Amino acid sequence: MLHLNGYKIANPTILARIPREELEALLTGYGHKPYFVEGDDPDTMHQQMAATLERCIGEIRAIQQHARERNDATRPRWPMIVLRSPKGWTGPKEVDGHKVEGSWRAHQVPVLDPVTNSKSLKLVEHWLRSYEPESLFDEAGRLVEELRELAPEGARRISANPHANGGLLCKTLDLPAFRDYAVAVKKPAGSYTSPTEVLGTFLRDVMRNNMTNFRVFGPDETASNKLTAIYEASEKTWLAQTEASDADGGDLATDGRVMEMLSEHTLEGWFEGYVLTGRHGLFATYEAFVHVIDSMFNQHAKWLEKAKRDLGWRQPVPSINLLITSLVWRQDHNGFTHQDPGFLDVVTNKSPDVVRIYLPPDANCLLSVADHCLRSRDYVNVIVADKQPHLQYLDMDAAVTHCTKGIGIWDWASTDQGVEPDVVIACAGDIATMEALAAVEILKARFADLKIRFVNVVDLFRLMPEHAHPHGLSSRDFDSLFTTSKPVIFNFHSYASLVHKLTYNRTNHDNLHVHGYHEKGNINTPLELAIINQVDRFSLAIDVIDRVPALRGVGDHAKEWLRGQIIEHLAYAHAEGIDKEEIRNWTWKG
Amino acid sequence: MLHLNGYKIANPTILARIPREELEALLTGYGHKPYFVEGDDPDTMHQQMAATLERCIGEIRAIQQHARERNDATRPRWPMIVLRSPKGWTGPKEVDGHKVEGSWRAHQVPVLDPVTNSKSLKLVEHWLRSYEPESLFDEAGRLVEELRELAPEGARRISANPHANGGLLCKTLDLPAFRDYAVAVKKPAGSYTSPTEVLGTFLRDVMRNNMTNFRVFGPDETASNKLTAIYEASEKTWLAQTEASDADGGDLATDGRVMEMLSEHTLEGWFEGYVLTGRHGLFATYEAFVHVIDSMFNQHAKWLEKAKRDLGWRQPVPSINLLITSLVWRQDHNGFTHQDPGFLDVVTNKSPDVVRIYLPPDANCLLSVADHCLRSRDYVNVIVADKQPHLQYLDMDAAVTHCTKGIGIWDWASTDQGVEPDVVIACAGDIATMEALAAVEILKARFADLKIRFVNVVDLFRLMPEHAHPHGLSSRDFDSLFTTSKPVIFNFHSYASLVHKLTYNRTNHDNLHVHGYHEKGNINTPLELAIINQVDRFSLAIDVIDRVPALRGVGDHAKEWLRGQIIEHLAYAHAEGIDKEEIRNWTWKG
Repeated sequence: MLHLNGYKIANPTILARIPREELEALLTGYGHKPYFVEGDDPDTMHQQMAATLERCIGEIRAIQQHARERNDATRPRWPMIVLRSPKGWTGPKEVDGHKVEGSWRAHQVPVLDPVTNSKSLKLVEHWLRSYEPESLFDEAGRLVEELRELAPEGARRISANPHANGGLLCKTLDLPAFRDYAVAVKKPAGSYTSPTEVLGTFLRDVMRNNMTNFRVFGPDETASNKLTAIYEASEKTWLAQTEASDADGGDLATDGRVMEMLSEHTLEGWFEGYVLTGRHGLFATYEAFVHVIDSMFNQHAKWLEKAKRDLGWRQPVPSINLLITSLVWRQDHNGFTHQDPGFLDVVTNKSPDVVRIYLPPDANCLLSVADHCLRSRDYVNVIVADKQPHLQYLDMDAAVTHCTKGIGIWDWASTDQGVEPDVVIACAGDIATMEALAAVEILKARFADLKIRFVNVVDLFRLMPEHAHPHGLSSRDFDSLFTTSKPVIFNFHSYASLVHKLTYNRTNHDNLHVHGYHEKGNINTPLELAIINQVDRFSLAIDVIDRVPALRGVGDHAKEWLRGQIIEHLAYAHAEGIDKEEIRNWTWKG
Repeated sequence: MLHLNGYKIANPTILARIPREELEALLTGYGHKPYFVEGDDPDTMHQQMAATLERCIGEIRAIQQHARERNDATRPRWPMIVLRSPKGWTGPKEVDGHKVEGSWRAHQVPVLDPVTNSKSLKLVEHWLRSYEPESLFDEAGRLVEELRELAPEGARRISANPHANGGLLCKTLDLPAFRDYAVAVKKPAGSYTSPTEVLGTFLRDVMRNNMTNFRVFGPDETASNKLTAIYEASEKTWLAQTEASDADGGDLATDGRVMEMLSEHTLEGWFEGYVLTGRHGLFATYEAFVHVIDSMFNQHAKWLEKAKRDLGWRQPVPSINLLITSLVWRQDHNGFTHQDPGFLDVVTNKSPDVVRIYLPPDANCLLSVADHCLRSRDYVNVIVADKQPHLQYLDMDAAVTHCTKGIGIWDWASTDQGVEPDVVIACAGDIATMEALAAVEILKARFADLKIRFVNVVDLFRLMPEHAHPHGLSSRDFDSLFTTSKPVIFNFHSYASLVHKLTYNRTNHDNLHVHGYHEKGNINTPLELAIINQVDRFSLAIDVIDRVPALRGVGDHAKEWLRGQIIEHLAYAHAEGIDKEEIRNWTWKG
């Protein structure tokens, strides 16, 4: 139904000011069968509207009956109603000589000064008396019996409609055991796998087990994001025409449960409607373009916070799960336009009651995090995980423990067992983790006595103080992981300043040196891109040498070698268009 | 022209899969007169396309001639061409048994392994030979003379078209003297004025002086944002139907230069196109909803950075000027949905070469900042200034000096002349400044000996280190404003963490305590909203008492009184729906 009342806050609306045949063509072009209800006499309009509604409901029922009896899912032309009535209908016609009813002036309070201006007060009285209150209310001011009876009862009341309080309808997902989808990790950082490809197999079975209340959303990118296994359970919703060639890999179906459309806005809108009516889902999208829905995310987060805090009658609804992929550090032939990890900055501004951010470093961690998110309610969960092949660090048991902690020391990558570390190397995100680990390997080889602690962060809000976010670490825990006085070199997936924003009042913050994306890029090789943003192994190792007092003087030759490495690898990438094999297939020697 | 080649990266397109009459209706509904060029035989299509182009150009010329000769600006139905051709047209028909031409598979590299697979190499050879290279190139590999002659010359080359390098066409704006629009400020913080209303009078005359190369953009909000004076110079572009009542305050004109449409996306797109072709403008929008264009802003900033740094032949283009108004702290009847000052976080992630943020505290500062921004090139300038009546602090001379410095001590609000301060009270933003000033007044009355330094920030990037942003203050300057050891209570317009993000490595950062919006709000009175986010005068004064060593013990009674004030004002706001008169009309006693 389109209520075409002609005006917005300060202007006419476009659809009210184009010729009738153009409007009809537009709505027909959108796939509707429009019916017009037009006028300004309330009694006539009431009859017209009732008759049109009746007719449309009849048509809708006929379409449904046809589809069900003949098993025919051909897209019908659904009826729609264009209700064309004056804006501010039945309000004051004119105020102070200016048209109000049927004008943009009816958008806000039509009479501004009845408290101080008796003429205005008269006007309000005349207006309100036009509704004949004496026939609507009894002497005690109660609505008359005849009208009270019109009010619907039970779930037909708007306030009690379960579809408007979707938690009432929500059924918990029947989730397969995520551990069954684990990647075998015999030794840490010894092999490469695409994390989202693994996730796809889990999501396929989530779909199979929940064919009435789970959907996956994606802007024409489910395949690009390597989630194609899902199509084995359900294809993409497609109600338009089909062609014979669609059968070969088109993955289209009228009852498909994967929602694809190259409009992040439409997808986010669908997804919000879907969870608000109690169903579950996951939205996978390119990292740089999730900013398209910043504003929608903000408003949904605000809605969630109010629903959760202030409206006790609202039942919890499934979370919005955003899988952010096709990440900044691995862009193939795409360049600078596709490098923007800043959505996390937007997310960290919203209420800690409703937002969660996870950066699982590998496929097993991603499975553990995804399972957790799909079980949750009333959050926006942001999961940052790439589609390209990446090093796998943890076997499933270790991954579950690590993700449950949300942050932790990786013993096998550390050299400070039983002693105080000289330096903490921390990281969050897949590539950030790999480069940090490679830096440890370089440092171990050069400085056998250097005591390195290696910390990985999955749950970003662990970095915040516990009073600022429910996931925040206590000072004691934070200080024990990051020390109170040793240099911390933190390699971060996104913009470095975000880590400072979350940790600025931690004890050891003055010694925290964060490396991250700083808006430098092109169509680079992976190592080249890392180097120009200084998140590469060589730059990290140099930073450690600069920050650890014991390495001053001692580390100068190593620094020279590292600088040489940077120059050599940049030159190679420039000449060959790819990184050296030792970089492309680097693994941890341990 | 719509090139309807049927597919995207992984799916058919919707418009290629709806019935022809639906597509025609849709385009007609959009206001076009569509012509279809359809097929897959290159020779036939070439002729068809040439004939259709010819016909359309003829129609366009006829429309223009009619409009000019009859002075008739009635909206015509402009011709459009729908070119329906196969995706990957003339590429390989099939690869490995899968359809490529006329399929989504043609979206990327059609043959993946010609280097390692001889069958694939043959396929590529067959494909490329189909273009008959022997008839296109001579023996030396040069394009044959006959084809070389087809290439256009001079400005008709795409690369040399001045409209694609808009800086070549750009004329400097003829700006009126902004000082002529100054608000009289006899004493600081003694009277209230709407900053944007004042700006409107300046913009009116900017418009008058530049009627061919300046436009103002706004999402149905130019009036709401109090910029109505602009309509005296030019009304809103309106090409749809008009009604008699439009004459009374509709402000519509076929040649209007104010672009209004309730779509921030469309406006930002128009504005970008307008500056990229060398013209100037300003886009005024509600603060909470500027997030709608986050992604477009990101891409424009990336484009600007590359154009500026790497493409020497690109001439500078006028800046995108975003006036962010209807701010978080003054929402009238709007509530939590309209409270989101987080766009600044997105902006601070972009290259320091291309972004600028200004928070002028009053109307005269806003005039000075606006004049500066309209003269600039190759930036996105973000100006944060409200539409509601606000206290006026600086007369025009003082405003110009203050805005030119970008940050400065306000002597008249400070009590530390000639001595070391006990505390620095800093602020950025209109309401943040007023509340900080009111806190100073409270503290002065209670603690006559307290040495307070009052610092106001207009140019937000002054807070960053000089190596990180061209506007950044040197350490020496920063330390001299904020001291190296005294408590700094900073009252900020937006989210508090942004100030920490910009200042985390300043000497005195450990003593910097920022107050700002922290995502708490409803339909509150102004003071109530300030209190629940602790940016109010009382909370600031309490923080000063807590942080200044000399006030410990001494300040306890004052703290009790301040806590009492908070309770009393919240109770009053709750009961009356407005703040007390002493708050609503507070002025600085000096």
